[in-house]
Amino acid sequence: MGTRHIPLSLLKNCDHVVLITGGGTSVPLEKKTVRSIENFSTGGRASRLAEGWLSTSGRSDRILVVSLQRRGAVQIGGQAMQSALHWDGVGTPDEVEARIAAVAAGLRFRAAARASCRWHPVYFDSVHEYLRLLEELAVELEAAKRGQYAIVLAAAVSDFYVEDVADEKIQSRGSSGLDLHLVATPKAVRPLVDEWAPSAFVVTFKLETASEAFLLEKARRALDEYGHGLVIANLLQSYTHRVHLVRSTNPTVAPEILEAG
Amino acid sequence: MGTRHIPLSLLKNCDHVVLITGGGTSVPLEKKTVRSIENFSTGGRASRLAEGWLSTSGRSDRILVVSLQRRGAVQIGGQAMQSALHWDGVGTPDEVEARIAAVAAGLRFRAAARASCRWHPVYFDSVHEYLRLLEELAVELEAAKRGQYAIVLAAAVSDFYVEDVADEKIQSRGSSGLDLHLVATPKAVRPLVDEWAPSAFVVTFKLETASEAFLLEKARRALDEYGHGLVIANLLQSYTHRVHLVRSTNPTVAPEILEAG
Repeated sequence: MGTRHIPLSLLKNCDHVVLITGGGTSVPLEKKTVRSIENFSTGGRASRLAEGWLSTSGRSDRILVVSLQRRGAVQIGGQAMQSALHWDGVGTPDEVEARIAAVAAGLRFRAAARASCRWHPVYFDSVHEYLRLLEELAVELEAAKRGQYAIVLAAAVSDFYVEDVADEKIQSRGSSGLDLHLVATPKAVRPLVDEWAPSAFVVTFKLETASEAFLLEKARRALDEYGHGLVIANLLQSYTHRVHLVRSTNPTVAPEILEAG
Repeated sequence: MGTRHIPLSLLKNCDHVVLITGGGTSVPLEKKTVRSIENFSTGGRASRLAEGWLSTSGRSDRILVVSLQRRGAVQIGGQAMQSALHWDGVGTPDEVEARIAAVAAGLRFRAAARASCRWHPVYFDSVHEYLRLLEELAVELEAAKRGQYAIVLAAAVSDFYVEDVADEKIQSRGSSGLDLHLVATPKAVRPLVDEWAPSAFVVTFKLETASEAFLLEKARRALDEYGHGLVIANLLQSYTHRVHLVRSTNPTVAPEILEAG
C-alpha cells in the first residue's frame, strides 16, 4: 500500500479528488541547510485554483483538494496575507482596516475549507521531498480511485540539483570561491502518467517568451512526449489575460484560447 | 551627497537613528531571475528588534528606525502574519479569531510606526543591491549625523556569488548538468567601519555550533579585525535563551552574558 498521507475518512467522503502542486522546490547546498538554490514561485496560482474548486465544491459534487505545496508558500485564502506581508505600512486608517478585513476573510476561508474536510495540505521543501511525495500521493490516489481525479502540476520544479551535498555549513573564510556541479532533475511527468497514476487526468503548465507559435509547438511536443491530458500555455507578456488550453485528445484541432479583459 | 534614500524631514525630526539590516540576500543565476541561491533567513530578528526600539521611542528620545530588508521578509508587526501564512488551517473558531486579532494588531502597529515617521523601510533582493544600499545608506547617515546612530547588521549575507550571470533562463533540455563557479563576497564590515560610517556604533552577529569558548574566540577575533562596537554571539543550541554581548572597549573584560528563562 505504501505511505499514507491522506486520511481515509477524507477520501471516503468525496466524489472527486484534485491533487495540485504549488510553490518552488529548493535545492539544498548543505545537509544542515543554510544555503539553497531556489526556483522563484509564491504558490499563488495553486492556491487560487484550489480556492476556485473549493468555492464550487458542494453544489453538485464534493471535491477534495490535496495541496502538495512548498512550506511557507501562499496557502488557500492567503493572497491578501501575502500582500499584507509585503506591505510597507503606508495607508489611511480605512485602507489599513480593509487590509485587515481581507486577511481575516482569507484565514476564515482557509479554516472553513479545513473544517469541512475539503482541503488537505502536504508540505515539501527540497526537490527530493517534492518528487518523493508526488510519487507517494499519486500511488495513494490511484489505489483509492475516488471517482474522477486530476493531478495539476503547478509547482516550479528545479531543473538541476546538487548531488554531493556538504555535511556542514560551507565555510567562507580562506576560500577563493566555490564550485558547484549540478545534475539534471529527472522529469516526473513520464512516470506519473505511465506508472504512478495512469487513471489521473494530468495537467501541466508551459510558459515561454518567444511567440505563440513557439509556445503551442512546445505544448504539443510535451503532450506527444508524455501523453497526458492538458497543457495550460501562456506567453509571459500576456499571461494575465490570455491562456491557451492545449488538449491531447485530438492534436489536429486548434487549441482553445481563453481571453479575459 | 550621493543617493538619498531617507527623506530629510524624517532625519530632522529624530534624536537618534538605527539602521538595521534583515533577511537573507539572494544570488541570482540569471539576469531575468528564475533561479537564485538563497541564504535562509525570515528577517524575524530584525523586525523584532525594530519593534522593540519603536515601542520605547517617544518616551525620552525619538528614534528613527531605518530597515534595510529583503523584499518579502518579515516586516515590523509581521510576526503573527508569518505564522498565519504558514498556518495549516486547523483550529477552533476562537483560535482562528485570535489569529486574526494578532495579525490585525501587527498591521496596525506597522501603520502607526509609518504614520508617526519613526520607521522607514528600504528593500533589496540580491546581494549586490544589499551591498550598494548599505553603502549608500551608511554614507547618507554619516553625512546627516543626527545625534547618536547605530548600524545593526542582522541580515544573512551570501558568502558567495555568481560572477557570470546568464542573460536568459537557463535551459534544462539536452543538458547533462550545470557547472557554477562562485566567488567570495567582499566583507562589508571593514569599509563600513573605516570609510562609510566611521561615527556609527556598529553591531554584528555571530552564530556557532561548536562551543562557547570557540564562539567567544570568533567574536573577539571579529572585533580585533574590524574594530566595531559590539558582537552579539549565540550558540545554535542555546540561542533562544542565552546571548553573549562581546564589546570592543576592553577586550580583557569578560563578555556580558544575558540569560532568559
